[in-house]
Amino acid sequence: MKTENLRINQDRLMDTLRDFAKIGETENKGVTRLALSKEDIQARTYLKDQCEALGLTVQWDDLGNMYALLSGKNPDQAPIYMGSHLDTVKKGGRFDGVLGVAAGLEVLRVMIDQGIEFNRPVGIINFTNEEGARFEPSMMASGIIAGKFDLRTMTKKIDESGMTFGEALELSGFKGSHANRLNQAAAFLELHIEQGPILEQRQLDIGVVECVVGMCCYEIDITGQSNHAGTTPQSMRKDALTAANHLMNILHKRLTKLDSDLVYTIGRFSVSPNIHTVIPNKVVFSIEARHKDEGVIKQVETILSEVTNECSLPSNATKLWGRNTVWFNEQVVQQIEESTKALDYSYTKMVSGAGHDAQFIAGIVPSAMIFVPSAGGISHSENEYTSWEACGIGANVLLETVYRLTTKL
Amino acid sequence: MKTENLRINQDRLMDTLRDFAKIGETENKGVTRLALSKEDIQARTYLKDQCEALGLTVQWDDLGNMYALLSGKNPDQAPIYMGSHLDTVKKGGRFDGVLGVAAGLEVLRVMIDQGIEFNRPVGIINFTNEEGARFEPSMMASGIIAGKFDLRTMTKKIDESGMTFGEALELSGFKGSHANRLNQAAAFLELHIEQGPILEQRQLDIGVVECVVGMCCYEIDITGQSNHAGTTPQSMRKDALTAANHLMNILHKRLTKLDSDLVYTIGRFSVSPNIHTVIPNKVVFSIEARHKDEGVIKQVETILSEVTNECSLPSNATKLWGRNTVWFNEQVVQQIEESTKALDYSYTKMVSGAGHDAQFIAGIVPSAMIFVPSAGGISHSENEYTSWEACGIGANVLLETVYRLTTKL
Repeated sequence: MKTENLRINQDRLMDTLRDFAKIGETENKGVTRLALSKEDIQARTYLKDQCEALGLTVQWDDLGNMYALLSGKNPDQAPIYMGSHLDTVKKGGRFDGVLGVAAGLEVLRVMIDQGIEFNRPVGIINFTNEEGARFEPSMMASGIIAGKFDLRTMTKKIDESGMTFGEALELSGFKGSHANRLNQAAAFLELHIEQGPILEQRQLDIGVVECVVGMCCYEIDITGQSNHAGTTPQSMRKDALTAANHLMNILHKRLTKLDSDLVYTIGRFSVSPNIHTVIPNKVVFSIEARHKDEGVIKQVETILSEVTNECSLPSNATKLWGRNTVWFNEQVVQQIEESTKALDYSYTKMVSGAGHDAQFIAGIVPSAMIFVPSAGGISHSENEYTSWEACGIGANVLLETVYRLTTKL
Repeated sequence: MKTENLRINQDRLMDTLRDFAKIGETENKGVTRLALSKEDIQARTYLKDQCEALGLTVQWDDLGNMYALLSGKNPDQAPIYMGSHLDTVKKGGRFDGVLGVAAGLEVLRVMIDQGIEFNRPVGIINFTNEEGARFEPSMMASGIIAGKFDLRTMTKKIDESGMTFGEALELSGFKGSHANRLNQAAAFLELHIEQGPILEQRQLDIGVVECVVGMCCYEIDITGQSNHAGTTPQSMRKDALTAANHLMNILHKRLTKLDSDLVYTIGRFSVSPNIHTVIPNKVVFSIEARHKDEGVIKQVETILSEVTNECSLPSNATKLWGRNTVWFNEQVVQQIEESTKALDYSYTKMVSGAGHDAQFIAGIVPSAMIFVPSAGGISHSENEYTSWEACGIGANVLLETVYRLTTKL
């Protein structure tokens, strides 16, 4: 068949996304579907039922990751997988994660409807606990598969109620065999909303994602002395907040100069004792920075580790964590770009500032990601929005790429 | 008798202070004696017993304020009162408040021991709920007496457990008659620890307090937009914390220029959503400023109300409250100064940056305050410390002043 006719059914994809959005729907039309919660189990069951109705083989591994496979004419070949995750943050949106799973299902439906025979198996994956909103850290199950996280440690992670990840897995009915884990696949493709404003602002259909940027995260603490706000002359104060303000000025000045693509954020900021009549004796704040070039991140780390020397009060910068830039497989990225061009959609090559399962899977399987626009760049919010048309465009690029990969890999 | 021989008994004063310090003593040798708590009731009972043992008349008014009077030879004359408060903040110190009551008791003991006949009654007052640590606001009972606070409103104020001030009063056994309230006294003298570092730093024995400085307290809020820290280019951010940092810079620059005696504090500071991977969408902070000159406070208010215009994001400055400087009675202040000189103690005239019962009582009775040094300027802390000698010096000035006032007023 000619690929000009190879298009997903936008209405059917919309219906699938709407069905998922009903599972854990919030008052404000968002979704709360924490990993392995009853809502997540309901969504998993829905996925399983839809896949089995299509004749796919559905299995899950010891981490609850779900695999639905269309074996095709060469079942012994390494498969190509599409996928993402069905879990959400608390009061999250209707697109983050689920789009990559629903679009994968839609691609398989088109293949089956049109009787296309791919030259290797094609399947979809739903990764467990991508958000880390119930059990930290995020991308837990893909991280374990890729050897980034230790299984035993992760199994003991607890949620707010004190239940462990391991217990939640047992109770879910979706704990399968270690043997089912992702292994020797030919490629992994993750379609996802951008979660940033760039595609919308530039009025582009598609982001061809080349990498997930590296980052570092530090905590800076400053120790002053609490005293009465009314009785302590300004010159005799050891005000931790004033000192923090000074450090933030230096940081803004120096970090802004580094590179225009650098993003950095002071997101968590606590003041003690936080009483209006008491001079603050402690400020602790987080600062994280992300850039694809590890050299830039190194420069950030130098600035962060040196800035505390310029504080008038005792101050420390502690590295909480960091990660290197993960570059996606060049061939897969190129296939996505060519597919996008062939379908005549507008696009840009771009980086992902957010973490995704694909960044871990990239360590064991040739992987890449496709982004579609997020209205206002908003995600992890009930207001998250991507038009059905934009979802459809993303799914068409996914379909085209899978089609091309099955003839090339 | 000659006043050269009129001295308090430092050991006895120390014993009294130590007895009080045991009531509500904390692990770290501080005191927790919240207003009308069982510890406060125990301290009140101790005071009552000590006063009755001295032959004083002990009464309490409808607010639980306690009055212990030595009527002397002219019981119809308006009395002179000394006093302060027995309640503390949570994990407070052994001197704040109680010193003014214990020293008053010591003064009366000396008078009785030495058979001195003052020409008008002399007594001590323990004001209820000065700290406001259990029931806000602070200086509640003196404020009601002075007509600053509404009785009905205050009666309904609740503590953490939901109990009202009115209920706690009823239960305390110290709710007396409205008729007993402070009325037509000749003077009120409050000896108190400085709660600031000035006397210690200047190595002075006594602060002759001329006024309680006026102040204003504002809340500034800034509204930005939360977005993903990794995916939102720096140029497209509406970061409320970055904007707050900019406003604080402007405030520090302008307020520092006003007057070297101005004190101002940003004490409460909250960032939302306060997650390291999310750009802050809201910052709310308090800023309060104190100065004896109302003109300076007006300049502060102009700066605060105009600064939000220079914020790149929507921002408001809301006045939470303010109060004018309360100048103490010139004659009483002069008597304290002369007494201090006569006793050959070093001193300075100074302002009180903190609020005290005397500032409200000054509205109905000629009042003034005597300060003694606070080690490190620390108060509202288990580490609050004033030497027994310094306490004794303060009590001697109190005694001398009362003696002089009873011959002049």
